[in-house]
Amino acid sequence: MKSIIVRNIDRADAESIRKLGEFGVATVHEAQVRTGLMLPYMRPIYTSARIAGTAVTVFCRPGDNMMIHAAIEVCKPGDVLVVAVQSESSDGMFGDLLATSCRAHGIAGLVIDAGVRDVADLTEMGFPVFSKAISAQGTVKETPGSVNIDVVCAGALVHPGDIIVADLDGVVVVPRTDAALVAQACEKRIANEATKRVLLCAGQLGLDMNGLREKLKALGVEYVDRA
Amino acid sequence: MKSIIVRNIDRADAESIRKLGEFGVATVHEAQVRTGLMLPYMRPIYTSARIAGTAVTVFCRPGDNMMIHAAIEVCKPGDVLVVAVQSESSDGMFGDLLATSCRAHGIAGLVIDAGVRDVADLTEMGFPVFSKAISAQGTVKETPGSVNIDVVCAGALVHPGDIIVADLDGVVVVPRTDAALVAQACEKRIANEATKRVLLCAGQLGLDMNGLREKLKALGVEYVDRA
Amino acid sequence: MKSIIVRNIDRADAESIRKLGEFGVATVHEAQVRTGLMLPYMRPIYTSARIAGTAVTVFCRPGDNMMIHAAIEVCKPGDVLVVAVQSESSDGMFGDLLATSCRAHGIAGLVIDAGVRDVADLTEMGFPVFSKAISAQGTVKETPGSVNIDVVCAGALVHPGDIIVADLDGVVVVPRTDAALVAQACEKRIANEATKRVLLCAGQLGLDMNGLREKLKALGVEYVDRA
Amino acid sequence: MKSIIVRNIDRADAESIRKLGEFGVATVHEAQVRTGLMLPYMRPIYTSARIAGTAVTVFCRPGDNMMIHAAIEVCKPGDVLVVAVQSESSDGMFGDLLATSCRAHGIAGLVIDAGVRDVADLTEMGFPVFSKAISAQGTVKETPGSVNIDVVCAGALVHPGDIIVADLDGVVVVPRTDAALVAQACEKRIANEATKRVLLCAGQLGLDMNGLREKLKALGVEYVDRA
Amino acid sequence: MKSIIVRNIDRADAESIRKLGEFGVATVHEAQVRTGLMLPYMRPIYTSARIAGTAVTVFCRPGDNMMIHAAIEVCKPGDVLVVAVQSESSDGMFGDLLATSCRAHGIAGLVIDAGVRDVADLTEMGFPVFSKAISAQGTVKETPGSVNIDVVCAGALVHPGDIIVADLDGVVVVPRTDAALVAQACEKRIANEATKRVLLCAGQLGLDMNGLREKLKALGVEYVDRA
Amino acid sequence: MKSIIVRNIDRADAESIRKLGEFGVATVHEAQVRTGLMLPYMRPIYTSARIAGTAVTVFCRPGDNMMIHAAIEVCKPGDVLVVAVQSESSDGMFGDLLATSCRAHGIAGLVIDAGVRDVADLTEMGFPVFSKAISAQGTVKETPGSVNIDVVCAGALVHPGDIIVADLDGVVVVPRTDAALVAQACEKRIANEATKRVLLCAGQLGLDMNGLREKLKALGVEYVDRA
Repeated sequence: MKSIIVRNIDRADAESIRKLGEFGVATVHEAQVRTGLMLPYMRPIYTSARIAGTAVTVFCRPGDNMMIHAAIEVCKPGDVLVVAVQSESSDGMFGDLLATSCRAHGIAGLVIDAGVRDVADLTEMGFPVFSKAISAQGTVKETPGSVNIDVVCAGALVHPGDIIVADLDGVVVVPRTDAALVAQACEKRIANEATKRVLLCAGQLGLDMNGLREKLKALGVEYVDRA
Repeated sequence: MKSIIVRNIDRADAESIRKLGEFGVATVHEAQVRTGLMLPYMRPIYTSARIAGTAVTVFCRPGDNMMIHAAIEVCKPGDVLVVAVQSESSDGMFGDLLATSCRAHGIAGLVIDAGVRDVADLTEMGFPVFSKAISAQGTVKETPGSVNIDVVCAGALVHPGDIIVADLDGVVVVPRTDAALVAQACEKRIANEATKRVLLCAGQLGLDMNGLREKLKALGVEYVDRA
Repeated sequence: MKSIIVRNIDRADAESIRKLGEFGVATVHEAQVRTGLMLPYMRPIYTSARIAGTAVTVFCRPGDNMMIHAAIEVCKPGDVLVVAVQSESSDGMFGDLLATSCRAHGIAGLVIDAGVRDVADLTEMGFPVFSKAISAQGTVKETPGSVNIDVVCAGALVHPGDIIVADLDGVVVVPRTDAALVAQACEKRIANEATKRVLLCAGQLGLDMNGLREKLKALGVEYVDRA
Repeated sequence: MKSIIVRNIDRADAESIRKLGEFGVATVHEAQVRTGLMLPYMRPIYTSARIAGTAVTVFCRPGDNMMIHAAIEVCKPGDVLVVAVQSESSDGMFGDLLATSCRAHGIAGLVIDAGVRDVADLTEMGFPVFSKAISAQGTVKETPGSVNIDVVCAGALVHPGDIIVADLDGVVVVPRTDAALVAQACEKRIANEATKRVLLCAGQLGLDMNGLREKLKALGVEYVDRA
Repeated sequence: MKSIIVRNIDRADAESIRKLGEFGVATVHEAQVRTGLMLPYMRPIYTSARIAGTAVTVFCRPGDNMMIHAAIEVCKPGDVLVVAVQSESSDGMFGDLLATSCRAHGIAGLVIDAGVRDVADLTEMGFPVFSKAISAQGTVKETPGSVNIDVVCAGALVHPGDIIVADLDGVVVVPRTDAALVAQACEKRIANEATKRVLLCAGQLGLDMNGLREKLKALGVEYVDRA
Repeated sequence: MKSIIVRNIDRADAESIRKLGEFGVATVHEAQVRTGLMLPYMRPIYTSARIAGTAVTVFCRPGDNMMIHAAIEVCKPGDVLVVAVQSESSDGMFGDLLATSCRAHGIAGLVIDAGVRDVADLTEMGFPVFSKAISAQGTVKETPGSVNIDVVCAGALVHPGDIIVADLDGVVVVPRTDAALVAQACEKRIANEATKRVLLCAGQLGLDMNGLREKLKALGVEYVDRA
């Protein structure tokens, strides 16, 4: 129950992380059997924002960003800050100065269950952020928290070292040790979808492709022609 | 109380539909005496999305998109899928594969009281979607529903065959048999607004243009000059 | 308790207002010790919208925009309409005709604790609006309200004549008589941040820059190395 | 598109209505294949409130209760006022005076997609109300609406003459002509549940009673014993 | 912009306050022309909670209740703590210890735009609280705020010394200097309503009592008899 | 990533669980340094509902309660069902039949991040439930899930075997192995609070008791007397 900062975490291999980022959130989420998705209120601050990297988790009190400062020091290039808050808050805990610092240390992006500000600057910098809110509301640096402990962020459990993939469809968490496995499952899914896409383009119906006609019948759904 | 798929519906004439689309949601909504508007949580997935077409209605259980597959088969070019859900849900019931299939069958767009995903792909395809949420959350194909029955979507009643107009201002439903009438009312309104716009541009006040000075007086509103 | 329209209000000097607009919401909010921020549900209708000007306040009943018409007459170039509503509403109380009239009278923008419509037109006109909702829902002109009285808009108190600054980070209210003082505090803050930005860019940590190491220690936060 | 007050509506037989009220919302909703339920934000103003009666529908503008006054005149004893509002509102459109009038005319209760007030008085009177909000916010009597047209109330379509059943579990709408049929389906369901209740009381599992063991197996769910 | 604690405030006469409390929120709100009502998310923690007293205002940071401790000292018997928070929060800033202290100093109740806890104890003590949330989430005592400054609480402006009336219908603020005037307006309203109640009880319609038949006609509302 | 049902879990000793239940949510939450609290939208279905027991976790798809049936079999007397849902849902997944079965197997209560129904029956039975919603919306039994895996429920991480304490203040999760430790911390806290309560009752101020006068001074908060 102490406040701690864990300096060293295990990370997945960079290649798996890169691949997961390319597959994107929807594919990764499906590939790991629809788990690990954050709540849909998490939105990118600009449309083209995308993130794939290793989670360095941060646990803060609402309205206090001191632990974000502490977390930057233990990050490695390619890491993603994942900020959870002790209770509901929309305060703007992160702005352009912190983003500048993140950039200097090679941090790949931010996922925060609270607010951010200086959004125009962050957009111009191309620093990707997924947040619950945009708010200019400033914060203090007075109360303790932790870095690299298990946190719940926007309804998803994140262990330090897990992989974060974020794009226009939301934010998904891949358990570190599943990275390669999930990447493989994604590849299969992508191949399968490519085939389907060609057929659907040619006018074939999902109804036939997925064998749903029999299912509809079995479920008692009836076709009707109005007079 | 059975689950049914109605194959054939009546449609309004294409010209009225086209016109209503050009007038846009705010004008159409006013022209039909401020009825038929969906709740304002329905938002386009990209800024330039616009839809005008005939509603093919779909009634699904939350987290199950089987009936969307069934609905595509009964659509004609220019139709719009209007998806209502049995209870509140933000799941991503529609993605790029379904959009590909819709495109192949000439479907003009989607209005859904739930979530969608693959939003970057849908945007690139230029497939217009108005939804309650964006979410990667995948769905199953296990439970029955209906196609082309009356549904309530985002607070608005939609009959199969009604006309859907959607743009940056929201989504409005025009009863099929009112199409021509509403289009005419829109034309009058547009003409009237054009005249007003010229006068307002020249500095005239809405206060005078709309005869509001007398009303304010009658209502007891007083003009005051601070010392 | 009467409904009144106050014709004349005091305004801050144009130069202070211009400066505050350049500093932006996050800086101004910090400079006045984190006060005056509207709730984060207030969002711009297009990304590049920015406002800085003098508040002409409008108090309306929900679903009635008559008093906005009355307010335009008492505005001077550079003023900003700040519309508060008697009870919660998302109706579209303002559209392109009102914006045309505002433009003709030099009004700088709109902040409204309700909805707006004709958003595509407003965007094309470059008329900046910050609102709680986008909704085509039309309104009536039947019930009295007031102009230039103290109002609560989106959780913030606004006196007529106060300065409104709005950008992608939200909307902040600066008391009229504090304008010059806040502008000075902003300048200091900006200078201070410029220095910090250079150091952070060079890799220095906020932890050191802000003397947080000692604080963490004093608060009992421990550094841990996992085996 | 005109504002109308329909004086006469068809009603279901009193006995069916009485029975549906006794079965309660959860049973009725299941018996009509899970349709017709209003959104769960509709709550009773006191715990023991229950309603069963015929819907007299009222369509109002937000913040205007004039049409409720008009509706009372066309009600018969046992009717239920179902108030829908043109756009989202939490205003207190109904209080103890209207309840007194309702009582005098034998009206059985109120279902309103907005707010009510004088809640302590209504509770003391034992006048059952299901509403979206409790709010003292008063309303005007200035703008037209309709009585006994089809309305969407809290996400459910209500035709005048439909049966409203409301209790602690929410509010459900039964189409008028289905009343007897749904009542029968409820009876079967109740009988079936009574049997199940006895078995469950005796310790039998739903898993066995509903044949779910095979389903779990077929779906690939595995039983695991931790070492 | 400094943090201050104002020790002395003006109060309205006890008799006016007592009367306003008896009239109740709905009547007071109407009597002062529908102003001063807090947002309807403010709810009593138990059904019979009622407050009438003088506002001692408290401005806190989210998650920090230090200033509530400071405020108690400057209260007089019959005062009501009105707690506003710098940004949105549901934290439980007040519990049974603070309530014990309030009771010891004769404080009449609490209105808080955040959360409270120990709700079972507060209920047993009969200490009336109106809050935005119930939450066990504890708070710190680390950051400065103010006592007896103007605050916005749940959408309503409160000056220190204003009168707070709260009951099952919500919370309303009466400007201190209007107390007697509003009390008089309430008396008139109550008398007027008593007359109306008798007539309504006897079956007279609001339609006739308020002269609405002519209005309906003038607005073009038509009576229709279905064949 | 498979669906599993874990039959056997470790449980904390009954005495610690009993004690934690007596201390109540606010005390337990404080004693474990303000962690483990579920979001404040989790509310009891009746005022006197209280739970203390061992978590048997259930992971369901929205609108599908099959896994609750599966979970009952692996419960022991005193266990608490903790139901998490794959995506946001307010459906009524639990009613009086399931409660009857729970009672027969000695299950102490239900915590569910979705809806429940038959609330009048559950209240009469005295079966305590904490839920996100009350809704009659029925569910299916078609899709797989898991029992006794780690879940996130209403923002809190719950491991199977953790202790759940729930009362009017909310729901808190105590890690199984911390049970005795937290119980001890609670005892200290209770003793400490008893002392404080006596002093506060006698009129002493929290300001003095907690040494806050110095803090206020250090933070620059000034006492002011209005002229």
